[in-house]
Amino acid sequence: MYVKSIVRQSVRYASDKAARFVPKTGVYPKGFVVGGIHSGVKKDGKSLDLALLKNEFGKEASAAAVFTTNKFRAAPVQVSSKIIKEKKGKGINSLVANSGNANAVTGSQGIKDAEDMVIVTDSVLENSSNSTLVMSTGVIGNNLPIDNILSGIPKLALTNLGNTHQHWIDCATAICTTDTFPKLVTKQFELNGVTYTLAGLCKGAGMICPNMATLLGFFVTDAPVTPSALQQILKYAVDRSFNSISVDGDMSTNDTIVAIANGAAGGELIESSSSSATSFSILQREITDFAQQLAQLVVRDGEGATKFIELKVKDALSYKDAKIVASSIANSSLFKTAMYGKDANWGRILCAIGYSNVTSSESIIPSRTSVSFIPSDGSEKLDLLIDGEPELVDEARASQILEAEDLVIEIDLGTGGGQEAKFWTCDLSHEYVTINGDYRS
Amino acid sequence: MYVKSIVRQSVRYASDKAARFVPKTGVYPKGFVVGGIHSGVKKDGKSLDLALLKNEFGKEASAAAVFTTNKFRAAPVQVSSKIIKEKKGKGINSLVANSGNANAVTGSQGIKDAEDMVIVTDSVLENSSNSTLVMSTGVIGNNLPIDNILSGIPKLALTNLGNTHQHWIDCATAICTTDTFPKLVTKQFELNGVTYTLAGLCKGAGMICPNMATLLGFFVTDAPVTPSALQQILKYAVDRSFNSISVDGDMSTNDTIVAIANGAAGGELIESSSSSATSFSILQREITDFAQQLAQLVVRDGEGATKFIELKVKDALSYKDAKIVASSIANSSLFKTAMYGKDANWGRILCAIGYSNVTSSESIIPSRTSVSFIPSDGSEKLDLLIDGEPELVDEARASQILEAEDLVIEIDLGTGGGQEAKFWTCDLSHEYVTINGDYRS
Repeated sequence: MYVKSIVRQSVRYASDKAARFVPKTGVYPKGFVVGGIHSGVKKDGKSLDLALLKNEFGKEASAAAVFTTNKFRAAPVQVSSKIIKEKKGKGINSLVANSGNANAVTGSQGIKDAEDMVIVTDSVLENSSNSTLVMSTGVIGNNLPIDNILSGIPKLALTNLGNTHQHWIDCATAICTTDTFPKLVTKQFELNGVTYTLAGLCKGAGMICPNMATLLGFFVTDAPVTPSALQQILKYAVDRSFNSISVDGDMSTNDTIVAIANGAAGGELIESSSSSATSFSILQREITDFAQQLAQLVVRDGEGATKFIELKVKDALSYKDAKIVASSIANSSLFKTAMYGKDANWGRILCAIGYSNVTSSESIIPSRTSVSFIPSDGSEKLDLLIDGEPELVDEARASQILEAEDLVIEIDLGTGGGQEAKFWTCDLSHEYVTINGDYRS
Repeated sequence: MYVKSIVRQSVRYASDKAARFVPKTGVYPKGFVVGGIHSGVKKDGKSLDLALLKNEFGKEASAAAVFTTNKFRAAPVQVSSKIIKEKKGKGINSLVANSGNANAVTGSQGIKDAEDMVIVTDSVLENSSNSTLVMSTGVIGNNLPIDNILSGIPKLALTNLGNTHQHWIDCATAICTTDTFPKLVTKQFELNGVTYTLAGLCKGAGMICPNMATLLGFFVTDAPVTPSALQQILKYAVDRSFNSISVDGDMSTNDTIVAIANGAAGGELIESSSSSATSFSILQREITDFAQQLAQLVVRDGEGATKFIELKVKDALSYKDAKIVASSIANSSLFKTAMYGKDANWGRILCAIGYSNVTSSESIIPSRTSVSFIPSDGSEKLDLLIDGEPELVDEARASQILEAEDLVIEIDLGTGGGQEAKFWTCDLSHEYVTINGDYRS
């Protein structure tokens, strides 16, 4: 009875989240078409499970990618990383992804299947060889139903690609697993008088046994960027977005974030050299902000999440140590359950700061550490701890702030170093345990 | 209604655990007396909250201690570590501990209170100054009700100390916070024809906001050991016991493990030098085994725990990397919820192995990694993964194995290094979230 009521609640949250976080319209970059179909990986016979993206603007797009650091790298991660390395990020013109099966821990057959997905996509799209990256997400330890996928690719490529909002929604839906809504963000910005567009999608949510909590994401732009500049920007942006979120702290065998830039909107080529340093900085800022919007959707859709928490660590000795402190709090089960319980428990925050593996012993000075809640309604912040001394907390005010779904927690390390990091996380709820404790059957 | 039923269930489990894990009798080392009373820290007016241990055999006992590495060290940790350092582990003859208040994040008043506990204990017991170590556990951020404690110490020291089983149970009970049962272990062993006795107690459980998940433990023996040998043995034993368990992965501001040896049983002095190397090794093995028994009680009493899991990582390149791999699995919320759900989810185990921060890139070789379940009833083991290839798992058999409370999971890293580590953890249940998500009020 308990589990049923939780499931009912989950459905309500899910549809509520879809209404709030799935855009009704979007602006899309020039020269890209996308789509998604059901190919027969997912067993319900209808859910979208195959996604394709194609660059139609010439054949020399730049691509960059960041892959999982998990030692057990799934077949598509091995194949895609090899391709992007061999091509030095130049001439990657399409991307194929399936959901429902992660093609992970699948031996040599798994590698062959991932390679076949690349070969068939390149052939159907008339690419030169190794112009496609491949991604998979879903159940691990089973081989792909590869025939279904290989016969799905031409069907999708030849009759189901386009650049309408619905095509992008379909593409985003086709990479979902336990996600309760498709994750799509679009954005425009100006650079040297030219308007550029960014569109991106991702999936996250978490693991339903034995699915992996895979993070897959890809975004494209019509700005002209060299592969090395794009790789540098992507690394910077992923550090501050997809690598600065935590649902349950686990990192999957399949995590992959890809960026492709085709230059279709024209303008001056953006390089990382000093001559175009300003353009480079602007693009880096725009892409980082965009990647943060995408990554935050994964936290919004965290399994069982009822709270969205931004941890802002200020005045650290280094960005790295600021992030280590934020990550330590974000991954504390005790902190996350306190947030679920709407409990202003600064003790658990302090504790997680204290055991974080910072690189310097000067990074945490108990007598200079301060913690505050910043309410989401713009009202005054609530100090919990100032310079290591606990404040007399107005519990009624704290409860009021914690009633809201959104909360910013500010940690001031007071080191004088001035460095800052942000990290996004959710709470740990009964529903998380219910979802993840279920039998696989 | 849900919460009520969980609480009822929790009470049932608790009394069940007390019946199973609290010994009805014990053997106690010579020359020590202990006790516990209610002094007025716990607000119910009756629960035991002040514990004392006194060495009656001469005044030159050896002591060793391992303290939390959390940057926010509570006042008693600061005071005790200073005393043991100044005395070089010689002449520590008593130990005073309170529960109900951790004396953490309490500023200069906190330090003075901890020092006063030492001064009053030394005075009442007619010790020379700084012969007492102090510990506290409980709520953080509030100053101790120090007058209650300071007037409780003489009452406890003068009329409530003894060496009966009940005195030891009272002492173990007086350091409990959210523990559902007092944790006490006793043991005898022979060395060079002399029988020595070990008795120890500890507390753990986890946090009830804003209590800390403090690990406190102390054990005593009547064996004759030098302070430096005892410190070396304690460090080794704690690494393989209290530092090889995980309830929720958080490390508190107060964690302290102390060992005292008074030599009352006689025999040759055990030193770490080569001349007594064999005696040293035997004592180290006995104390490590003893500390593991104590530490395992903390996992048994993990908040909301329904499973007791031993992770055994074999054939690693180093003990350190074996332990890092085991710890990574033990701290994965996804693994822990799968265990709660009785799900043979080798994917989550593999995933946690893959993202563990091992020190060498040679330490994890996907194609050589094997995972098996070892049933607690002595029946045949169930292989889930052999040399990186998933086995076709008999789910009925897996479910049967997972019905039992106890389970050993064996991870064979196949590196050829032959090193091994064990780690103990529990599952992550609905009840854990209920306990830790509750309002503090």
